[in-house]
Amino acid sequence: MPPARPPHPPVSSIDVARLAGVSQSAVSRAFSPGASVSPKMRAKVLEAAAALGYRPSVIPRIMLSGRSRMIGIVVGGLDNPFYAAVLDHFATALQTRGLQTLMMRVPHALSLDGALDQLAGYRVDAVVTALAVGSRQAASALSALRIPIVCFNSRLTAPWISTIRSNNRAAGRLAAELLADRGVRRAAWLAGPADSAAARERGRGFADGLAARGLLPPIVLAADDSYDGGYAAMGALMHREPPPAGLFCSNDLMACGAIDALRARGLSVPGDVLVAGYDNIPQAAWHGYDLTTFDQQAEQMAAAALELLDDPATATGGQSRTIPARLIERGSTSGLIT
Amino acid sequence: MPPARPPHPPVSSIDVARLAGVSQSAVSRAFSPGASVSPKMRAKVLEAAAALGYRPSVIPRIMLSGRSRMIGIVVGGLDNPFYAAVLDHFATALQTRGLQTLMMRVPHALSLDGALDQLAGYRVDAVVTALAVGSRQAASALSALRIPIVCFNSRLTAPWISTIRSNNRAAGRLAAELLADRGVRRAAWLAGPADSAAARERGRGFADGLAARGLLPPIVLAADDSYDGGYAAMGALMHREPPPAGLFCSNDLMACGAIDALRARGLSVPGDVLVAGYDNIPQAAWHGYDLTTFDQQAEQMAAAALELLDDPATATGGQSRTIPARLIERGSTSGLIT
Repeated sequence: MPPARPPHPPVSSIDVARLAGVSQSAVSRAFSPGASVSPKMRAKVLEAAAALGYRPSVIPRIMLSGRSRMIGIVVGGLDNPFYAAVLDHFATALQTRGLQTLMMRVPHALSLDGALDQLAGYRVDAVVTALAVGSRQAASALSALRIPIVCFNSRLTAPWISTIRSNNRAAGRLAAELLADRGVRRAAWLAGPADSAAARERGRGFADGLAARGLLPPIVLAADDSYDGGYAAMGALMHREPPPAGLFCSNDLMACGAIDALRARGLSVPGDVLVAGYDNIPQAAWHGYDLTTFDQQAEQMAAAALELLDDPATATGGQSRTIPARLIERGSTSGLIT
Repeated sequence: MPPARPPHPPVSSIDVARLAGVSQSAVSRAFSPGASVSPKMRAKVLEAAAALGYRPSVIPRIMLSGRSRMIGIVVGGLDNPFYAAVLDHFATALQTRGLQTLMMRVPHALSLDGALDQLAGYRVDAVVTALAVGSRQAASALSALRIPIVCFNSRLTAPWISTIRSNNRAAGRLAAELLADRGVRRAAWLAGPADSAAARERGRGFADGLAARGLLPPIVLAADDSYDGGYAAMGALMHREPPPAGLFCSNDLMACGAIDALRARGLSVPGDVLVAGYDNIPQAAWHGYDLTTFDQQAEQMAAAALELLDDPATATGGQSRTIPARLIERGSTSGLIT
């Protein structure tokens, strides 16, 4: 049986017209701002509509205009509070503008194509995706849909595809400088998945920054980009050698995991090891972590995306905007390593 | 300027028909499973469609059937990871069934009415909401829409409105028994907002459970249902008197805040105080908290909601389903208070 079918069709304008004793066109006019209808007729229609629980459908308007006032938001799992916050900011910003959020949750970047096919069927006005468009080939398939697409933290732009990103490389460099200033001589980089361009840039900036201070390249720890990933990677390192005095993690979830792994082995953060992350998730501000991090300013990213989509000159893609990540210094880097 | 308008209308079936040199109806048939169209004709249409990036619109089907295959999901902020997880489970479950998620983010329960008005305009097939329907009056306004609605943790059912809830009271009682078994003689209840029926039931069950063991009623601490709320309430209590030996919190976020407040004052969890929460958010499993909690089993709640909506006999509302919350015992209640 097809799921979620209302057992009765919704109340239609025909039902309202019948109860009010007016024409269907009069019902339609009563609900169209500025349309010609007498106050008396409008009152009659609204009374019947209220009695029946009728709400005018936006579907005919979508059919005529090809515009749905729905924006597709594609996300890949909400277990990282950063993605939940981005979605939250977007849904709020869209609603403020009278737009709707058609949310698509896809398992991984490869499913972006299929998601967009479905969103295209609903005639979404635009798509915003937290998943990067991985290749030129994928980009040209998406461009063919002629739907404005804005990606986060992607490197690629193309016709119809724009990107909004954090200044990942500069932030990585800043993290290195901060740790060096606190006396760190040997640092590690807790890298996220290899397929994330944003994570790679953060790591590159961090290595640049250490080199600029005449320090050794970071110990690179590959890890899953989750709390458990950070915990496991840090734990494994400490089985082999003493931990480095400073640690930069490609996201906050991994940093929280790494901090707990250090403490589980009796080490203090920031007493023995300084730790910094990326994203400024709510948990970074929790007293148990008090984590220095970079705020990607999701609200500004959302605003920038909507600005690109608002302007016909930029909605057709090919644009790139950088939102500076803001360093949030907290207790996890407050000590001096001696 | 109206936001998010694609500067060009999407490719239409007319464009495809023109390029393929066939009728518009042939294009429509080529995209309708089971429709009569020759393989040669279909190939011609699909080739033209691919060249133009055409995707068939679902809008005419919605207009004819009054069914959109979109489900409205109403949430009130995603800063509690529990709500993010619920949304995540729902979006995944809906996609598995070929349904779409029209997400509405509303500031508070009072805005449910307005949200449903908008969702009704898009002809959603049903609405699932994390916000409770507060009053009989609100319920009858919503019933008038004749859209199947499923609420989480609401007490109220009505025509078209069903509810799925956790066995909050039984869980509260179980929390009391667990703490009493561990030697707690004086306990506190960190209550959430007064307008949450679910939180009130958890507190009532907790008080019942303590009474059944012959213990004093819990010290009741009112708090905002956030990490900061838990931190502040616990901190304020300790300024007045020594903390109770056991603490039950109406959600995990508050419990994490309370634990950090206890530790900030040099107390150990579970050495000095045992703590339990509710929701089983990911952070409850983090080593830094290792929090005993109740898992609401969001996946089962989502499945139960879709089951209600699938069946015409239950989609019309008035149903109530209880999903047992599962006790997850962790380190935060592992000690024995002596």
